[in-house]
Amino acid sequence: MKNPIGIISMQFVRPFTGAHLNVLQTIKAIGFDFIELLVPEPEDNLDSTALRDALAEAGLDIVLAARVNTQRSISSDDPAARQGGLDYLEHCVEMADAIGAKITGGPLYGEPMVFAGRPPLPRRADEMKARADRMIEGLSRVASKARAAGQVFALEPLNRFETDMLNTTIQGIAVIDAVNDAGLGLMLDTFHMNMEDQSIPDAIRLAGKRTVHFQANENHRGFPGTGNMDWPAIMRALSQINYQGPVSLEPFRRDDQRLALPIAHWRAPAEDETEKLKSGRALIRAALDFAEFAQ
Amino acid sequence: MKNPIGIISMQFVRPFTGAHLNVLQTIKAIGFDFIELLVPEPEDNLDSTALRDALAEAGLDIVLAARVNTQRSISSDDPAARQGGLDYLEHCVEMADAIGAKITGGPLYGEPMVFAGRPPLPRRADEMKARADRMIEGLSRVASKARAAGQVFALEPLNRFETDMLNTTIQGIAVIDAVNDAGLGLMLDTFHMNMEDQSIPDAIRLAGKRTVHFQANENHRGFPGTGNMDWPAIMRALSQINYQGPVSLEPFRRDDQRLALPIAHWRAPAEDETEKLKSGRALIRAALDFAEFAQ
Repeated sequence: MKNPIGIISMQFVRPFTGAHLNVLQTIKAIGFDFIELLVPEPEDNLDSTALRDALAEAGLDIVLAARVNTQRSISSDDPAARQGGLDYLEHCVEMADAIGAKITGGPLYGEPMVFAGRPPLPRRADEMKARADRMIEGLSRVASKARAAGQVFALEPLNRFETDMLNTTIQGIAVIDAVNDAGLGLMLDTFHMNMEDQSIPDAIRLAGKRTVHFQANENHRGFPGTGNMDWPAIMRALSQINYQGPVSLEPFRRDDQRLALPIAHWRAPAEDETEKLKSGRALIRAALDFAEFAQ
Repeated sequence: MKNPIGIISMQFVRPFTGAHLNVLQTIKAIGFDFIELLVPEPEDNLDSTALRDALAEAGLDIVLAARVNTQRSISSDDPAARQGGLDYLEHCVEMADAIGAKITGGPLYGEPMVFAGRPPLPRRADEMKARADRMIEGLSRVASKARAAGQVFALEPLNRFETDMLNTTIQGIAVIDAVNDAGLGLMLDTFHMNMEDQSIPDAIRLAGKRTVHFQANENHRGFPGTGNMDWPAIMRALSQINYQGPVSLEPFRRDDQRLALPIAHWRAPAEDETEKLKSGRALIRAALDFAEFAQ
């Protein structure tokens, strides 16, 4: 399998600003084919033309990762938050167009939970239905914008602690089929699948051609090969659905076992991770390559 | 392996009150050897003598699960919360004594995160050290109380979204060794290990004789056998460390794939789960039995 392999910008720095364009050369030197970049915020001072030029110079492609919050939340019962979500996702299409990205992925439905300090709450059946309807309506609106721009939104289920909208691959399939627009596909992240799905390979086979983006993360978000993921089986499933899209890594767990460490909070690298990233990329590359020979 | 297999009270009802003693007969009829009961709160109206009698009548043993919160938090920098944590854990020893329980497990260190609406926050190194020191000091105080009462506290690491005190088995081992009191052992829960440890069987072997309680949960907290856990390998590791303690199940994920479902929030059963619980128990029993034959 020839899928391009990329790395999330947060592996190196956050925020990724106009002063960090040199990171693209680092990413290329490690062997990656693309960067997955958080959609720039105005305060990041990241000029889209400068970014586009730096990508071309480094020989890197790009995938965007959308950043929602409680005020950018198309599923919310608050009309202002819902409009904020729609406006933001339309902004993402414009930003992708300016940068030259074809895929923007993430929890596009909004409604963040633990990272917004929102605890799991009970939901009545009618409330669940209303939220799901708002999600599907909002995604339908922005999917057509992406399609018209030659792009696709990649909808990512998250684990139960990060959202209460969409957790399993089966739920994700239901939303993709309800929206039924080539401007919206499914994004699968093995970190979340490992918490919510019965079987990662089975879920990949169920998702099939709906899959437009894939994140290959270890169970603990450490470097690929240091956890319990069955990479050969996972890549065989990707081969079986003829997945030719990008495979992105996000191993920013960092190697640290101190007590009272906030593992879920983003932390900057505390060491030079180059060799570990090279090894992780090589493992994913090899598992992808081998998948063709073992159907 | 002859380990007793039990089930958490929340599988059936929450809160478990004085009106629910008949549930003990149900649990026995399904084939379980013990109930894991949330430590009763005063408002549960659960008389300890009545409970003890009902346990004897049903022929069930009992393990207790401690319920901490931000005001029962021995690791907190707030002296009142810290005292609240110490008082509560001492109350647990008394309650266990009254009921006839020998093990009280859970996230005894306090500092709940997502279920308390607390987001992951950055922590300075000195703050991490101070929190860890308070955790070890608090556990040392209550471990001696448990030991004097012929009991043991079972310290449970939780995943990164539920606490920022203790997530991995390696961290748990460090705390047990620092406290170094027979009144404190380690509790391992495969749901959390699957998110935080590199390998569940390796982690079990590392924990070794420190292990005093074990929770056998699927990756998604569904019924055993419906997820990605490698039960034979896990039980072989338990056999290798000669673990003879209880094995508890908490499959209260419920079978439900509706959109916008709050999976992390506790929900009552929506169907009769008896046959699924019998099958799950039988699978764990068989994996334990087989483990002796495959060293």
